[in-house]
Amino acid sequence: MTTAPAAPTAPAALRERAARLDADDPLAALRDRFLLPPDTVYLDGNSLGPLPAAVPPVVRDVLTRQWGTDLIASWHTNGWWEAPLRVGDAIGALIGAAPGQTVAGDSTSVQLFTALDAAAALRPGRTLLVTDPEHFPTDRYLAEAVARRRGLDVRRVPPAALPGFLDAEGHRVAVVSYSPVDFRTGELYDMRALTRAAHQAGALALWDLCHAAGALPLDVDSLGVDLAVGCGYKFLSGGPGAPAYLYVARRHHAGLETPLPGWTGHADPFAMAPQYTPAPGVARARVGTPAILSLLALEAALTAFDGVDLTEVRAKSLSLTGFFLRCAEELLAPLGFTAVTPADPGRRGSQVSLRHPGARALTAALAEHGVIADMRVPDLLRFGVNALYTTHQELLTAVLRLRDVARARGADGS
Amino acid sequence: MTTAPAAPTAPAALRERAARLDADDPLAALRDRFLLPPDTVYLDGNSLGPLPAAVPPVVRDVLTRQWGTDLIASWHTNGWWEAPLRVGDAIGALIGAAPGQTVAGDSTSVQLFTALDAAAALRPGRTLLVTDPEHFPTDRYLAEAVARRRGLDVRRVPPAALPGFLDAEGHRVAVVSYSPVDFRTGELYDMRALTRAAHQAGALALWDLCHAAGALPLDVDSLGVDLAVGCGYKFLSGGPGAPAYLYVARRHHAGLETPLPGWTGHADPFAMAPQYTPAPGVARARVGTPAILSLLALEAALTAFDGVDLTEVRAKSLSLTGFFLRCAEELLAPLGFTAVTPADPGRRGSQVSLRHPGARALTAALAEHGVIADMRVPDLLRFGVNALYTTHQELLTAVLRLRDVARARGADGS
Repeated sequence: MTTAPAAPTAPAALRERAARLDADDPLAALRDRFLLPPDTVYLDGNSLGPLPAAVPPVVRDVLTRQWGTDLIASWHTNGWWEAPLRVGDAIGALIGAAPGQTVAGDSTSVQLFTALDAAAALRPGRTLLVTDPEHFPTDRYLAEAVARRRGLDVRRVPPAALPGFLDAEGHRVAVVSYSPVDFRTGELYDMRALTRAAHQAGALALWDLCHAAGALPLDVDSLGVDLAVGCGYKFLSGGPGAPAYLYVARRHHAGLETPLPGWTGHADPFAMAPQYTPAPGVARARVGTPAILSLLALEAALTAFDGVDLTEVRAKSLSLTGFFLRCAEELLAPLGFTAVTPADPGRRGSQVSLRHPGARALTAALAEHGVIADMRVPDLLRFGVNALYTTHQELLTAVLRLRDVARARGADGS
Repeated sequence: MTTAPAAPTAPAALRERAARLDADDPLAALRDRFLLPPDTVYLDGNSLGPLPAAVPPVVRDVLTRQWGTDLIASWHTNGWWEAPLRVGDAIGALIGAAPGQTVAGDSTSVQLFTALDAAAALRPGRTLLVTDPEHFPTDRYLAEAVARRRGLDVRRVPPAALPGFLDAEGHRVAVVSYSPVDFRTGELYDMRALTRAAHQAGALALWDLCHAAGALPLDVDSLGVDLAVGCGYKFLSGGPGAPAYLYVARRHHAGLETPLPGWTGHADPFAMAPQYTPAPGVARARVGTPAILSLLALEAALTAFDGVDLTEVRAKSLSLTGFFLRCAEELLAPLGFTAVTPADPGRRGSQVSLRHPGARALTAALAEHGVIADMRVPDLLRFGVNALYTTHQELLTAVLRLRDVARARGADGS
């Protein structure tokens, strides 16, 4: 039976704390860099970031002046040709990559395919690809596909077990492919330790940064990460299906063999030569003609990070998720919700996941009350926070609405 | 030495003929479907089509309402999820493909990789991939890459020699990969005869339709084409780097193995299952999350073909290229220009290419005088025509301007 939820009420202590944390937030002004819909608490920015204010004017310019008026000349006069490398460097700045090692374009799946295949080629004679059994599906499917094509085997090893596995089998491992943040639970893994363990075994470390880039400081160069990929549309807020990116550490460039030698990765693309000669540097990882509208929208979106210190972003993100966990403990645990995101800040990404058997129905009911979260089968509600625009008061509102819809729907949420 | 060119003058007969052909053009009103820049003769639509009038309002809606307001729900409420198949079907209608066989997304290079690899897998035991020595570079590079990965060999056989080659070696050929239009010369090949020759040898026929789709009637279903790919940004005018497409004949769907099993091609993508189970039909050729901005811009662009009969497009295109060749013969041949595009209308795509040693400098000089063409090394000037907006009078203007800049620059155009 569904009844209209009561107006949200909350313990005064939580209300006051949320207000104080927001009042003291050094990043509060960044919220104006996003065009958020009114009367909505948007907590799905870890799936699709909201529209940055910088995007519409840039897209208008790309359409009407660059494409509409300057036409084909824009490949050079408006910097379209260099965009994959320029946007790649802008993303590189957010993941700790010095310029010239990151290229933007294609989808995460295509970039993963390239990264996995190239990694295997860089470690000839090694027969195993190792990945997380809980990894995002596309990562697992593509690891299987690359392994099958190359006659290798995939081993699925949870992050906690990886060092032990590598002690025993590491000499056979070409590459370990993990995400620093579990997309279901929001658990954060130790990139430094896992990268080091891979290297001690002589394997390469490939990281999928989809759920981390833009949400916390990353430092691929100084950790010695070998390859990394990620999407443009989660915490980077580049728009639906925004181009992905591929990072390849400079030391691997000379030996990098891409499985997709498209013409834009050629050393002299307009010579239209019969044989493929790879461009120097990471440019050889370019594939076909880039989707310029989506790519330049992403570039505009990245300006939301201009002047932003990711250490501050991380601090606020932890404040937000910590506050959410506290609210959930107080107001939702009695209704059968269990937090699966670690309480330890050092093991927490930028989302909170709650387990409840009615996850699907509750997420839908929340949306009807202006709180946008998402769910992952069978029973997880996911709440992403983005320190560039999320407030503590929004999180309290979300928890209160969830309490009310859960109460209204009964113990199983149905 | 450069001098200002004289004002264009032309034989009255050519002027009158251009005016009459344009006055009688049944497609003349379609030009209003494009936002062409003023004072420009744009003859590079075979490289980047101009901005269709339908695109800006759609992109504005995608940005501000769909992304900005509806946010993540748009994947379902605004049809984002189905867009690759919906846009695929819209392109299918232009290439003679019944619905359910074409998927839009990624770049032509990625789609070619998928098509070549899938074709090889459909013909196990056959050891040759055959392609055109004059094929667009990315087609050649990717054929080599797929062959290398699969332990196959590439044979480069000109289209005219293909039937003879297949008579001798056809039993070893997995797939023949050609374009119906030579991107340099504009020569049109006989898709029906070459497809039939491939089939008689038991091989598959894969066509790259980049330089043909939207410019002439294609009939992939009735010709029995096995696979086809193409881009969205030439005659389809979908915008810079607009998503590409892949056509797979229905009879191959059940056995289709894609080398890029991304999560969106899964039978139940939101189950996030550990194993990849391909979706039924051509949906299994979806890869990663599609670049929605670019994809929906392409969808809007395709409405420029609403109600348009491609037979009429072809007739006008031949009228345009025929008129251009006549003007070139009369006004440019005396200056050392040689037409390399066949005079026979049955062997002509939708462009005219002229050979001249000063091609590069002359193309640049033309652009300064408002005529946008392009060149291909070492010595070809390319003039693409698109019957949806190009006029005969524009072509006469282009030829006259080229005559004038050639005269001003001396015999070698430098």
